[in-house]
Amino acid sequence: MSKPKAIVLMSGGMDSLLITALSLEAGYEIFPLFIQYGQKTEKRELKAFNDVCDHYKVPADHRKVMDLRELGKIGGSSLTDAGMAVESELGKGGIPNSYVPFRNSIFLAYAVSWAEVLGAEKIIIGAVVEDAPGYPDCRPEYYTAFNHLIRFGAKNIIQIETPIIRMSKEQILNECERLEAPIGKTWSCYQNEDKPCGTCDSCKLRQNAFEAIGKSDPLL
Amino acid sequence: MSKPKAIVLMSGGMDSLLITALSLEAGYEIFPLFIQYGQKTEKRELKAFNDVCDHYKVPADHRKVMDLRELGKIGGSSLTDAGMAVESELGKGGIPNSYVPFRNSIFLAYAVSWAEVLGAEKIIIGAVVEDAPGYPDCRPEYYTAFNHLIRFGAKNIIQIETPIIRMSKEQILNECERLEAPIGKTWSCYQNEDKPCGTCDSCKLRQNAFEAIGKSDPLL
Repeated sequence: MSKPKAIVLMSGGMDSLLITALSLEAGYEIFPLFIQYGQKTEKRELKAFNDVCDHYKVPADHRKVMDLRELGKIGGSSLTDAGMAVESELGKGGIPNSYVPFRNSIFLAYAVSWAEVLGAEKIIIGAVVEDAPGYPDCRPEYYTAFNHLIRFGAKNIIQIETPIIRMSKEQILNECERLEAPIGKTWSCYQNEDKPCGTCDSCKLRQNAFEAIGKSDPLL
Repeated sequence: MSKPKAIVLMSGGMDSLLITALSLEAGYEIFPLFIQYGQKTEKRELKAFNDVCDHYKVPADHRKVMDLRELGKIGGSSLTDAGMAVESELGKGGIPNSYVPFRNSIFLAYAVSWAEVLGAEKIIIGAVVEDAPGYPDCRPEYYTAFNHLIRFGAKNIIQIETPIIRMSKEQILNECERLEAPIGKTWSCYQNEDKPCGTCDSCKLRQNAFEAIGKSDPLL
């Protein structure tokens, strides 16, 4: 019997590493999806994506890289707008200025489209509430609403799963260790591509997690 | 007081012409959005979009053309897959092979993203049930589910409206006449860019509508 198929949304960070490892542990045939959308560190993230795929021997024709840099035309986010600096302070309403409006919905909609063509039954995304309590589309209720939409808008039965949404970064790192996932191949920094800046929100979350488990980051 | 803003999803066809005319009649400042996604007739549709925008004197900086031809990488539809012919017969499960999986969700997600940046409160889409009863994302319940998703996933209050979803093509043409909308500037054919093929589903719907109102199509 063939394995069930799952699309895994991978950004190249430690959250997407863990969902990859968990999806393989659960017995899925995985189809990793990387989305370039003009983020400042996209080249480095893409390298991390391919390094992680190589580690898990994911065939080239199972990986998909979608170029959605057109999203930059919409603007409004420090991640895609060259004229804005990434701020570590939260913006109005507790939403950081790195928020790309409705970004996860765009990515998930592409993932559903691909899932229909592949006949994949799951879409796995590494959303984590703790990372970004101010991002409207990182909350569990949001994913429930998206699954509801899929039931009306798609032909096949496809379900989004968020296996690590309630984990702390410390739990995520511990799970990566348990699964012997190659954390040194990931990339988290929003600002730099050579050496992590150490000051953006994403670097800080990563540093705190390594401190919490009493280990040092192999990237540093 | 400034007018409320609405994004109008325009394909260049008669449905999107009518929602444009209705949005202007309702007093909105409109921001037309055209999406290229590798459809076979995209150049002709884009011309229709700009001709309609010019007719209504929509400023250039209010129009947005998004290039989502990356969608062609997903495949599975005769509209974007050069190796597939557009069939007029319905496919399995009553879904025509011109169906691009979850396409409207992708387009709407971009529209919501742009609406957040603009501060637009409405997104107007010319979905019509009668056109495509087999397209899962042309049904009213689908739009209800999408509005539910927006409430969880977006920062602002944004609502999708489908003002012509229950109209027949005959009613749509009659409304276009009432509003003196320039039907001769639209394009409906899925297959050709010079002269309508007359055989694709979209051409047939258009012909039937003109016959029903007893007029001839200015394009023919």
